[in-house]
Amino acid sequence: MSIMKVGVIGCGYWGPNLIRNFAETETARLAWVCDVDGNRLETVSRRFPVANTTSDYRQVIADRSLDAIVIATPVATHYEFTKQALEAGKHVLVEKPFTTCSRQAEELTRLAERRGLILMVDHTFVYTGAVRKIKEIVESGELGDLLYFDSVRINLGLFQSDINVVWDLAPHDLSIMDYIVGRRPVALTATGSCHIEEGIENIAYVQLRFADSMLAHFHFNWLSPVKIRRTLIAGSRKMIVYDDIEPTEKVRVYDKGVTASRERDSTDKEAKYQTLVSYRTGDVWVPKLDSTEALRHVATEFLDAIREKRQPLTDGASGLRVVRLLEAAQKSIDRGGQLIEL
Amino acid sequence: MSIMKVGVIGCGYWGPNLIRNFAETETARLAWVCDVDGNRLETVSRRFPVANTTSDYRQVIADRSLDAIVIATPVATHYEFTKQALEAGKHVLVEKPFTTCSRQAEELTRLAERRGLILMVDHTFVYTGAVRKIKEIVESGELGDLLYFDSVRINLGLFQSDINVVWDLAPHDLSIMDYIVGRRPVALTATGSCHIEEGIENIAYVQLRFADSMLAHFHFNWLSPVKIRRTLIAGSRKMIVYDDIEPTEKVRVYDKGVTASRERDSTDKEAKYQTLVSYRTGDVWVPKLDSTEALRHVATEFLDAIREKRQPLTDGASGLRVVRLLEAAQKSIDRGGQLIEL
Amino acid sequence: MSIMKVGVIGCGYWGPNLIRNFAETETARLAWVCDVDGNRLETVSRRFPVANTTSDYRQVIADRSLDAIVIATPVATHYEFTKQALEAGKHVLVEKPFTTCSRQAEELTRLAERRGLILMVDHTFVYTGAVRKIKEIVESGELGDLLYFDSVRINLGLFQSDINVVWDLAPHDLSIMDYIVGRRPVALTATGSCHIEEGIENIAYVQLRFADSMLAHFHFNWLSPVKIRRTLIAGSRKMIVYDDIEPTEKVRVYDKGVTASRERDSTDKEAKYQTLVSYRTGDVWVPKLDSTEALRHVATEFLDAIREKRQPLTDGASGLRVVRLLEAAQKSIDRGGQLIEL
Amino acid sequence: MSIMKVGVIGCGYWGPNLIRNFAETETARLAWVCDVDGNRLETVSRRFPVANTTSDYRQVIADRSLDAIVIATPVATHYEFTKQALEAGKHVLVEKPFTTCSRQAEELTRLAERRGLILMVDHTFVYTGAVRKIKEIVESGELGDLLYFDSVRINLGLFQSDINVVWDLAPHDLSIMDYIVGRRPVALTATGSCHIEEGIENIAYVQLRFADSMLAHFHFNWLSPVKIRRTLIAGSRKMIVYDDIEPTEKVRVYDKGVTASRERDSTDKEAKYQTLVSYRTGDVWVPKLDSTEALRHVATEFLDAIREKRQPLTDGASGLRVVRLLEAAQKSIDRGGQLIEL
Repeated sequence: MSIMKVGVIGCGYWGPNLIRNFAETETARLAWVCDVDGNRLETVSRRFPVANTTSDYRQVIADRSLDAIVIATPVATHYEFTKQALEAGKHVLVEKPFTTCSRQAEELTRLAERRGLILMVDHTFVYTGAVRKIKEIVESGELGDLLYFDSVRINLGLFQSDINVVWDLAPHDLSIMDYIVGRRPVALTATGSCHIEEGIENIAYVQLRFADSMLAHFHFNWLSPVKIRRTLIAGSRKMIVYDDIEPTEKVRVYDKGVTASRERDSTDKEAKYQTLVSYRTGDVWVPKLDSTEALRHVATEFLDAIREKRQPLTDGASGLRVVRLLEAAQKSIDRGGQLIEL
Repeated sequence: MSIMKVGVIGCGYWGPNLIRNFAETETARLAWVCDVDGNRLETVSRRFPVANTTSDYRQVIADRSLDAIVIATPVATHYEFTKQALEAGKHVLVEKPFTTCSRQAEELTRLAERRGLILMVDHTFVYTGAVRKIKEIVESGELGDLLYFDSVRINLGLFQSDINVVWDLAPHDLSIMDYIVGRRPVALTATGSCHIEEGIENIAYVQLRFADSMLAHFHFNWLSPVKIRRTLIAGSRKMIVYDDIEPTEKVRVYDKGVTASRERDSTDKEAKYQTLVSYRTGDVWVPKLDSTEALRHVATEFLDAIREKRQPLTDGASGLRVVRLLEAAQKSIDRGGQLIEL
Repeated sequence: MSIMKVGVIGCGYWGPNLIRNFAETETARLAWVCDVDGNRLETVSRRFPVANTTSDYRQVIADRSLDAIVIATPVATHYEFTKQALEAGKHVLVEKPFTTCSRQAEELTRLAERRGLILMVDHTFVYTGAVRKIKEIVESGELGDLLYFDSVRINLGLFQSDINVVWDLAPHDLSIMDYIVGRRPVALTATGSCHIEEGIENIAYVQLRFADSMLAHFHFNWLSPVKIRRTLIAGSRKMIVYDDIEPTEKVRVYDKGVTASRERDSTDKEAKYQTLVSYRTGDVWVPKLDSTEALRHVATEFLDAIREKRQPLTDGASGLRVVRLLEAAQKSIDRGGQLIEL
Repeated sequence: MSIMKVGVIGCGYWGPNLIRNFAETETARLAWVCDVDGNRLETVSRRFPVANTTSDYRQVIADRSLDAIVIATPVATHYEFTKQALEAGKHVLVEKPFTTCSRQAEELTRLAERRGLILMVDHTFVYTGAVRKIKEIVESGELGDLLYFDSVRINLGLFQSDINVVWDLAPHDLSIMDYIVGRRPVALTATGSCHIEEGIENIAYVQLRFADSMLAHFHFNWLSPVKIRRTLIAGSRKMIVYDDIEPTEKVRVYDKGVTASRERDSTDKEAKYQTLVSYRTGDVWVPKLDSTEALRHVATEFLDAIREKRQPLTDGASGLRVVRLLEAAQKSIDRGGQLIEL
């Protein structure tokens, strides 16, 4: 199997995890590591001695022997770096959120397509054992029709100075929802509030509507005393609780539901129909999950997609869908919760 | 101390609890119990032999020796029964939600005022040890400025055929919020969805905005696989988690927060200021709570307010405020989440 | 179906629950309620108007029309009351612990047998949905061979003035163990300590040994800051955690285990064998449990056994087995933890 | 401040953590890393390039410039390696359990004393923020008199081929108990069972008795479906629950207790005294804990003790006390739970 030569630009918070996973993947060779911060670069290079290091990303892009570039820099730079990398003929894996606006995401997606290159967005959560198991269960039809998706991701969080809580946390839940629900929302509303720094929302609620009665709702919060990462996915037959704080029992499938049937009311002379609602409560099932580090699957999916010349699971189009939702959420917040058609 | 003669109309789900508490309160004498359902009436009368029973509420209201009437009937009847009771010169304690529309609530409140009668709404949660302790902490200023109030009240709930999940569950959280926050929201948005029966929302999200950056958000749900009753109350200095599922440790006070300070950036030649955000994490305190049944406090407050000729804690005005919010929430849901000015 | 006439002696802590369940069972008629305390008697008689009341238990026993007697008095009286009831030809259901010593329990068991009467001990926990489900799972062989049974039952408990923590709490866990394990232990050790009142142990550890490597261990404690009621039942193939504090998900079945296999060590010239231990972790299953009140099943089992002339599930012999263990535990504690052969 | 030159022997499971902490401590210089396994050695040396590496521990001991040696090898080698290191004039930090028998531990302790060298045992848990906070609370007298210490450390654990569950897990809890209780037990009983491999206990219960009514009890288990690490420390005034699984709120202090007072029974003509037991339940306090890695404190304590020529907190004597308890536990298990006087 051919070995892909990979360069990583950005050694901040997430970069070292990407570097480690590509370094440990047998079908890749980590050829370059790049960061403008010399200390970071040195720390990383000490741990992964095989890589060339540079503080100039152009040097990485210019290396003609390189197959692929991984971009883990602040979001404001994603567009420019990805564009240059694609134009230099490199496959690209870029951190989430993909870009700062959908126009850029569209342009990059088209560019990759035109050049026949793989463009993948690192929506890491999609590759966790928990989310993949949920997808499998939903796909199997076991839940019945999806009724709602309710996600809470709150903690006393790291304040970002460049992005608000929506751009920071929502890519996780929106990409999970996009993957699991598999349908496109038709409208969005969002509200938020800035309690610490003006212009940077630290709490936000986002709601998506679908063509039918399906709802998706999200609570993002950097200012919560407790850490909660819980998603409810209710189907007409069964329901899932996905609690990412749980060390191993993250996914619980409840054989619970409500059924409504319309019956003729025998006590009613006018022969009206009344609705009878019956409850069903059965076993709970906690499936065993693949505990492989999600980022290992990210690296493998990227390398496989390159090799097999196919779209990766979280391709540019999926990144674009998430950016469109982020953009719409920001617009709705700015307009005081106005409904945004998608 | 004078003994109040009390009649209770309605022996359904909640009525027997009211009956028991008035029967066991020494300053009250339970004189009448009324229900249209003969079986219920018999069950109750067997347990509380002192009461006269009747299936005609007019008989209760007509008893000139009676001081006060407790109304625990379906919400659609609250207005009529309360009005007649007030007009007959009785003090009234009425179940939540107070009425089906704010116009009725206003009329009843004015009527009680004009007649010099006590009109109280049974917002039971306001009288729990947990909520009173939270109120005490918030009043003391320990939390600093309130930033947000986030409440989740979900379970696989009893479907009501006459009211939706908002009218069923929201009176609890809205009355708690009204009591603890002590300020009036200026606008509201709400959305919901009907998954079981058309026209009866079984899931709803309600959001309140205040004049400043304070937010209140509520998730109500009859179709959740898990039972959650959790409220986050974040202040600028401390934060509270109120978990009503916990058997005893319902209130936790977190000495946690974030402080932003603006400092001159010494590395910046243009002498710009940057925001430094610092985190604070200290002890957690779980205060002991009064474990008296809340309804006992409700009965006492009603009787004391009559005797002391003063407004009770949850008077008609407080019931009216909650009904206005319920009404606005319904309007917003019906209009697809439109912002309703309050 | 014939209706059994039942009398209940003892209206203290547990008596009213027995009274309520027999009163609500259609195949029984509650004919007598007896207690030396007039207040208790009045309270009970007001709730259950059909019963005759008396403060003299002999009056109950003397009623020739009575089929069965339920004894819910302090343990010191069990022997005498049960004996007189059996001698008067009544079937008897007696509270746990059965008697204060095994000699009495043996005598009563023989007496009942001789007279052809049903003698049943109210080991309520054996009739819970949780314990019956566990029994079903163990019986099915799903767990493999039982390896150990570890039970913790601790809280800030009600101090008893007549019995210690072993006689108070151990009957629960010992009867559960007796029912689920279905084998007899061969030896016992126990230790305890008296921190509050001399001579009354408030903490105790009891351990049972079986003929093979199976162990059972119990921790009983009236002086714990937290309430824990958890039992681990490990089998060679699967394991169960039974957490009685959980509102609904009390039983969890873990598809977990360890397997040892002996393999020839290829790196070892002397061809020694080494043990390879492999771990297995699979799904967790939380079975739905029957939520009928256990005491209802107790009443039904007692009445059915009388009618069908068969031994009830927790017959005198089972009560005797538990008393023997309690007695041995007390002896071991008194002798500083000495091993007692059973 | 002088920089200590340190060599580490053993790069297995725990060694790399020690290496990392000494490497990152400014007052130490990591001079040697040693392991018989070449792969491990290479992995470690790549991460910590400053160290000399060797597969022969004698080379480390022979380095005359070295001040101190850290021994993280299998327990069977501790005695020999520590002895040689001390004889070569090195200060020694040795992994727990200190030695395989108390005779060796005594000899090493005496040797270190004679040579004026620091001998410290790595009882890491003693250095955690949780245990140090508990010690502080107990020392302050806030708990009152200690009544019992109950510890459960169970999970589906790594089977060791050379030692049983007692030698593997008990050093943690025994060293914590030794540190917090600060008194010496007078007797011990222990029982265990071998379910996987003959001769290697995978479950064990150990109990310590003190001169008064104080008890300490321990449950160690490699074959539990759930991971529990919980210690109850009950005092006559307050009680602590230390739950090491909790990510941050590991220590909870309960203002709970029971008080017994003897009062003259006024209703009793013979003027007997009766015991009145009263319960007290107050707030719960969850103190903030130092979250520094415990091993960093271990490294610092070792280096400080060398520099200040004083005994470290967990000196050879403390290691010896733990080994004596392990030895006694093994003896008691081997003799079927016999009481061992200490």
